[in-house]
Amino acid sequence: MNFCSHCGERVSLRVPEGDNRPRHVCESCGRIHYQNPRIIAGCLPVYGDQVLLCRRAIEPRYGYWTLPAGFMENGESTEQAALRETLEEAQARVQLKQLYTLTSIIHVNQVQLIYLAELERPEFGISNETLESRLFSEDEIPWDQLAFTTIRNALRFYFADRRENHFPLRHIEMEPGTDSLPLKP
Amino acid sequence: MNFCSHCGERVSLRVPEGDNRPRHVCESCGRIHYQNPRIIAGCLPVYGDQVLLCRRAIEPRYGYWTLPAGFMENGESTEQAALRETLEEAQARVQLKQLYTLTSIIHVNQVQLIYLAELERPEFGISNETLESRLFSEDEIPWDQLAFTTIRNALRFYFADRRENHFPLRHIEMEPGTDSLPLKP
Ligand SMILES: [Zn+2]
Ligand SMILES: [Zn+2]
Repeated sequence: MNFCSHCGERVSLRVPEGDNRPRHVCESCGRIHYQNPRIIAGCLPVYGDQVLLCRRAIEPRYGYWTLPAGFMENGESTEQAALRETLEEAQARVQLKQLYTLTSIIHVNQVQLIYLAELERPEFGISNETLESRLFSEDEIPWDQLAFTTIRNALRFYFADRRENHFPLRHIEMEPGTDSLPLKP
Repeated sequence: MNFCSHCGERVSLRVPEGDNRPRHVCESCGRIHYQNPRIIAGCLPVYGDQVLLCRRAIEPRYGYWTLPAGFMENGESTEQAALRETLEEAQARVQLKQLYTLTSIIHVNQVQLIYLAELERPEFGISNETLESRLFSEDEIPWDQLAFTTIRNALRFYFADRRENHFPLRHIEMEPGTDSLPLKP
């Protein structure tokens, strides 16, 4: 950030009075421009013993498989965001069942929320972000072709939890250097 | 938003190619400036049969009681944000037990996460955001002096769930005009 989005003057990076960390401050109009993490909302659509994955038509990770998920927009709830992304990316209508994973992806300033969902009918499709959508049973999951660690985590948890028929909220912190995102090809 | 924070030129509000909603677009450098909901993280600190509340030293709702909570910062997890806010606002150290409420406050583009937490010792204090911190038993809660609907919800759920000793994640959507935030005095 170089310029004030309100008045167009240059901003400086300094700790404002009463604050304890550097912010982009406009000395001209006085505005402080905070930067905060963004939310990614999506779901894990289940149909019988299969799950729905989408093959990415965009970078990063073009051609790799993922769950329908994307940035939450202003003016919607987390659930509405998850439903919208599922419809946009997979052309699929689902019923959300519960929040399943909450992952703080610290090094990219994102918080990812994945809901467990039921696919109502085996109807799904493609979009400008999705080359292909497909149902996979557990033994068909393309583990080495998944786009992101968070997606791999959600799928691993799901198949393990399904054996117990118990799906606790999975609360995950991803730090830089641990199991970084995206996965290496 | 009037100006591009990157190059300082005027932005226009239009639907970018491949998108489906208006964004602030810089025609000069090509950047698209997305605006997304922000996360508020905090906790409900429990000490025996009491809970810790803070009386606000800042607007909005100066003088009203709240739970320690504030905007999540870049570079931290949701839990770290909740712990930091509790330390900053109430000078209190807690152990987070579980995520308890997730509230989409749609009309202000916020998602609030409140964790159930255990206050380790009955030690707490004031800050530049807090006039006073105090432990309250259930029959002492100042229900008509609470700062926000989300705080009232969290406390109501907590005391009800405590009778059952079962604390499911409470997933709440707040729409404009329903039970708006902040409460009327
Ligand atoms: Zn300015
Ligand atoms: Zn620009």
